[in-house]
This record gives sequence, structure tokens and C-alpha cells, in this order.
Amino acid sequence: MPELRKDPIIDRWVIISTERAQRPVFLAEEEAPPKAGLCPLCAGNETMTPPEVFAIRPDHTPPNTPGWTLRVVPNKFPALRIEGALNKEGVGLYDRMNGIGAHEVIVETPLHGQTLYTMNVASVQNVFVAYKERTIDLLRDKRFKFIMIFKNHGAVAGASLDHSHSQLIALPIVPRRVFEEINGGLAYYKYKDRCVFCDIIAQEAEDGSRVIYENEAFVAISPFAARFPFETWVLPKSHVASFLASGNDDNYYALADAVSTILKKNNKLLNAPPYNYMIHTAPADLASVPYYHWHIEIIPRLTKMAGFEWGTGFYINPTPPELATTFLREVSLSEGA
Amino acid sequence: MPELRKDPIIDRWVIISTERAQRPVFLAEEEAPPKAGLCPLCAGNETMTPPEVFAIRPDHTPPNTPGWTLRVVPNKFPALRIEGALNKEGVGLYDRMNGIGAHEVIVETPLHGQTLYTMNVASVQNVFVAYKERTIDLLRDKRFKFIMIFKNHGAVAGASLDHSHSQLIALPIVPRRVFEEINGGLAYYKYKDRCVFCDIIAQEAEDGSRVIYENEAFVAISPFAARFPFETWVLPKSHVASFLASGNDDNYYALADAVSTILKKNNKLLNAPPYNYMIHTAPADLASVPYYHWHIEIIPRLTKMAGFEWGTGFYINPTPPELATTFLREVSLSEGA
Repeated sequence: MPELRKDPIIDRWVIISTERAQRPVFLAEEEAPPKAGLCPLCAGNETMTPPEVFAIRPDHTPPNTPGWTLRVVPNKFPALRIEGALNKEGVGLYDRMNGIGAHEVIVETPLHGQTLYTMNVASVQNVFVAYKERTIDLLRDKRFKFIMIFKNHGAVAGASLDHSHSQLIALPIVPRRVFEEINGGLAYYKYKDRCVFCDIIAQEAEDGSRVIYENEAFVAISPFAARFPFETWVLPKSHVASFLASGNDDNYYALADAVSTILKKNNKLLNAPPYNYMIHTAPADLASVPYYHWHIEIIPRLTKMAGFEWGTGFYINPTPPELATTFLREVSLSEGA
Repeated sequence: MPELRKDPIIDRWVIISTERAQRPVFLAEEEAPPKAGLCPLCAGNETMTPPEVFAIRPDHTPPNTPGWTLRVVPNKFPALRIEGALNKEGVGLYDRMNGIGAHEVIVETPLHGQTLYTMNVASVQNVFVAYKERTIDLLRDKRFKFIMIFKNHGAVAGASLDHSHSQLIALPIVPRRVFEEINGGLAYYKYKDRCVFCDIIAQEAEDGSRVIYENEAFVAISPFAARFPFETWVLPKSHVASFLASGNDDNYYALADAVSTILKKNNKLLNAPPYNYMIHTAPADLASVPYYHWHIEIIPRLTKMAGFEWGTGFYINPTPPELATTFLREVSLSEGA
């Protein structure tokens, strides 16, 4: 059984994934990802994954057969286990709980070689719809406090499979970074009676030097204190605390348009970089607070300079966000981008 | 002039290093590190670096000539600038200050190809002595609040030069992670009237399952909530808040012995992994508080799984610290290790 352990000094939980660790993990032993024919995420290979929990497929096609355009399956090597009651206990001065949770894979396309870069906006929209549907379903389980949605694209960014996919982990805790943002937002709100994210969006709209792209509902900015070159945040222009609350069809289409535009621009400017993105959203019990504002953070993995950052929380960003904005704005996405 | 910018939501400063950014940084454009003959850190090439600010060398040898066993020079491409007054200002809701600081390189050996793995304990001790001497000197400058000392070994860990070296950055702020540890330590102290690190050391000594190595003055443990496989912390056994206060010769020899032992064991078990280490120490004005306890965190860079961690503050560690401890303990360092 995996285990969640709390750092005794700072407020951070870590999954200690005992089941994945039959032996130590060494870089050199990494296996190459399977090729198209043998890829468990490809259409035709549905039996290579656990049974699907969600799919976008024609009505006449049975589950776990080809025909789908998007599919969600449990992770074959889950970091957390769905079975059991959540037990918390102390071990001397330490705290731990058993690793209850869910870990799912969103297969974004049946085609090996397609990516969010190359998919059309409607297909990207489906990905966000799938995130929403799975989140709603998993939050029925009261053991779960937070649904963490993220994407690793490319081996450098942590993807172990080439086939375009994202992941979802349902957690019995709120991850540290989101928790800190909520606290920061709350402190600002107490002082100013306004949402800090809304204020940022207003200031960026007026300033203009860090706005990469916007449409009717979403804006993509290079954050003022960006940690990484070409780090981009996509935020709803109006105040919405939870990703779920942005979820009517029009909004998710606009979201897909904004995310897709940034990814295409990154792809062209930065030569198809590996990247991560993560959705930061209010936990279920704070879904409509006035002081938090959901968003997606997109981080191309361009530098290896990020060595000591984990140990210090200190970042050196060699590309000012204003410069990144200028470069990304100049990228033209006319035909075939 | 580089700039320090504060994240408007959470309490984190970032260096926006404008001078390093003549153009965007792309992974593919990285250059291979120079070979021995052309290496600016090698003995004989002293003129390729800025003039030394500290050296361990025979009395009869002039500065910036061969003969030294250790040398400290300003970084040729500093992330921060030493000249000027520290100015802080607001920009709408944002906060920034100019990038005042120092950035130095500790050249640990005159020999290309030597590493902390292969150097003898007395030579490793010299490295810690150099950290101490430079820290004392830089803290005379009242603009600096914190001296951050870290090592990147191997390209994957962020080293741009092969020649064994570590780095020091003098900062006008305390980096976030250290600040959080101080706050966590203070909260624990208020509640228990004891140092949380001292309590951890006592509990680990009694439990034993996460103690990798110890000598008379230092202990090396796998932390209970380790974020990374084979993450190791080296701590002084007695309560000491500041790295400087551990600095008599005997103590630094014991420190060098402990760090050297862990690095040698990592080297043998994990096949000379790239790694980072960082010194977490109390800032100058908290140098003798009862609630903080300095230590070194050593992190082999074994997995590429750390993709989304920056965005969520959430870690999945596939190697339980008890298992890492067992493996590392079993490594024998008898002759030639």
C-alpha cells in the first residue's frame, strides 16, 4: 500500500510509492516508450489498459473497443490506491496516512503521433470536458479533497509514454502549492476585498507587456515573477474559483482555443519543447470563494538550470517574461502552424 | 541589471536575469562543457576567470597563478550584481528590487576529473572552510541577508562546467524554502519548547531504520517524507542553527567525512549519479536561535518523474527512505571505493 507522509518541518505531503519500488530506480535503466503498434494507449489496443471509466465514442460502439475519440482509464501503475478507508496516524513526531486515492490517464486521441499541438480546438475541448466529467464523478467520493490534473509531454517532462495523454490524481489532501495560493489569495482579499488574480488580470490588461493572447473568455499571460522561461498562465477573465464552474461548452471551447494557441506558439518558437501543465483549482469545499481564481500553468522544459530549486525554493529565470511575451506574440499561426 | 521580483500571490522571490538573456535559451543550443585543456577552472588557466577572492595556496605563490588546492572566483556570468544600492519599489500590485548580490564559484580542486567522490576527506574539509570564509566576508556587507551555497554535479543537475565546483549566491532576501523551515521550526518550538530537528535526530537514532551513517558530530539520514529517491540530509548531532557556528576544524572534518561517505556510497550504488546539494542555514540575524538547525540536503538526480512538482508542490517518491537506507548502508567503501 502506498503511503502519504507529511514533512515534519514544513506543511508538505509526499506520496511514498512503495509498490512501484520493487527495486531502486536508476536513470540508466529507463526503458524506451513502446512504439505505435505496441502502445497501450492506441486505438485497437484497448485490452492493454484497465477498463475505461469514461469515453467519448459513438453510441453504437461498446466500451473498450475502437471507435472512441477520447478515453479515460485507470493508471496501470497507480501512485495511490482506490480501495479502503482513509486512516491517519502519528509515528512519533511524524504523520502519515494510507495512500487512498485514484490515478487515471486521459488518452487525448486514438492516434499515435497526434498531440495537443496538432489537434483541432474541438478535440482539445473534449480533453477539458473529460477532466470535468471525471472530476465530478470522483468528488462524489468524500475521501477525496482535491483532484489534481496535469500533463507531462515528452520524456524530459516526465512522460513515460509517447502517446498524447494527461493524468488525474484524486487526493485526500490539497497539494501544497494550491494551498499556498489559496492562503495568499485569502490574505489579499482580507486586506483589499478583491481577488488578487482579478487584480493581476486588470493590471496586465492595462500594461499589456505580458499579455500573450486573449479571447472572449480567457487570457494568457507571462506572469510577472515567472520562474521559468516561457512559463505561461491561462486564466478565465471573469472571476471563477473552480475549474468546474467554467464548464459550459462555450467556455471550454474558449479555454481550448487559448491553451491550444499557446501550445502551438511554443511548438513553433521553441521547437516542439517538452512541457508540463497543471490545473490549479479551488478544492471542492471552496468552489465558489471570492478569493481564489482557477488557472492553468504551462511550463516548457527548456533549461536544466533548475537543479537546486527544489532545495531552496529559489528560481533564476534567464528569460524576462516581457521578452517571452514579445517572442510568443510574434509567432504567426497562419495555415499549418 | 538583473531584477528580483516577488510573486504577488505567494511569498516567493525570483531572479529575472536580464543580462543572461540576450536571446531565449533553448535546450538544443546548449554547448558541451570545455575539455580539460580549455577549462577555465583548471590550474594554469587562472587568467580565464575573474581574479580570485579566496584561495588555499602555499604562501610563496602569488594570487591567480598555479599552486593552489582550492580557489574561489566571482562567477563570470553572475545572476546578481555586486555594485549599487539596494532599491525596492512597487509596480502596481507587484513588488521588485534591483538584483544586488554576489555570485561566486568555489573551484574545489585544481585537477580536472577529480570530484568530491574521489577527493580525500581533508580536501573536502577545505571546501567547507572556503564556504565559511566567503560567507563571513560577504556578510560584512549589510545589503545581504542570506548566503546560499549549493552544488550542481553533472549536466542533468545543472552544471555547465565539468570541473568540480560549487556555487555561492549572496542574496538580499532569505530564500523561500529556508524561510518556511524557519517558520515551521518556530511553530514547533512555540508548541513544544524543543527544536524539531533535534527531535527528529533523537527519534531517528532510536528508530534506526533511516540512519545511513553517523560519526561523532554528524548524522546522515533519509528523511521520513523524502521527496526524491536516495534524498539524504546531513545534520549536526548537537543543536547548531548556523553553518558558521559548526566551523571549528574538528567539526568541519567530521562534516567532510559524513558528506564524503554519502557521496561515495551514492557513487558506487547509483553509478556516479548527477546530484545537487544545498546548505540550509539560519540567516545572519538568526544565527543562534533555538528553533532552527542547519543541515545539508543531498539529492541524486535519478528520476525524470519530477515534472509537475514545481507546479503543485506535490512529490511522488518511488523509493521509500527505509529502502534507500538499507541499500546505502550495505555499500562497502573499503579500499578504492
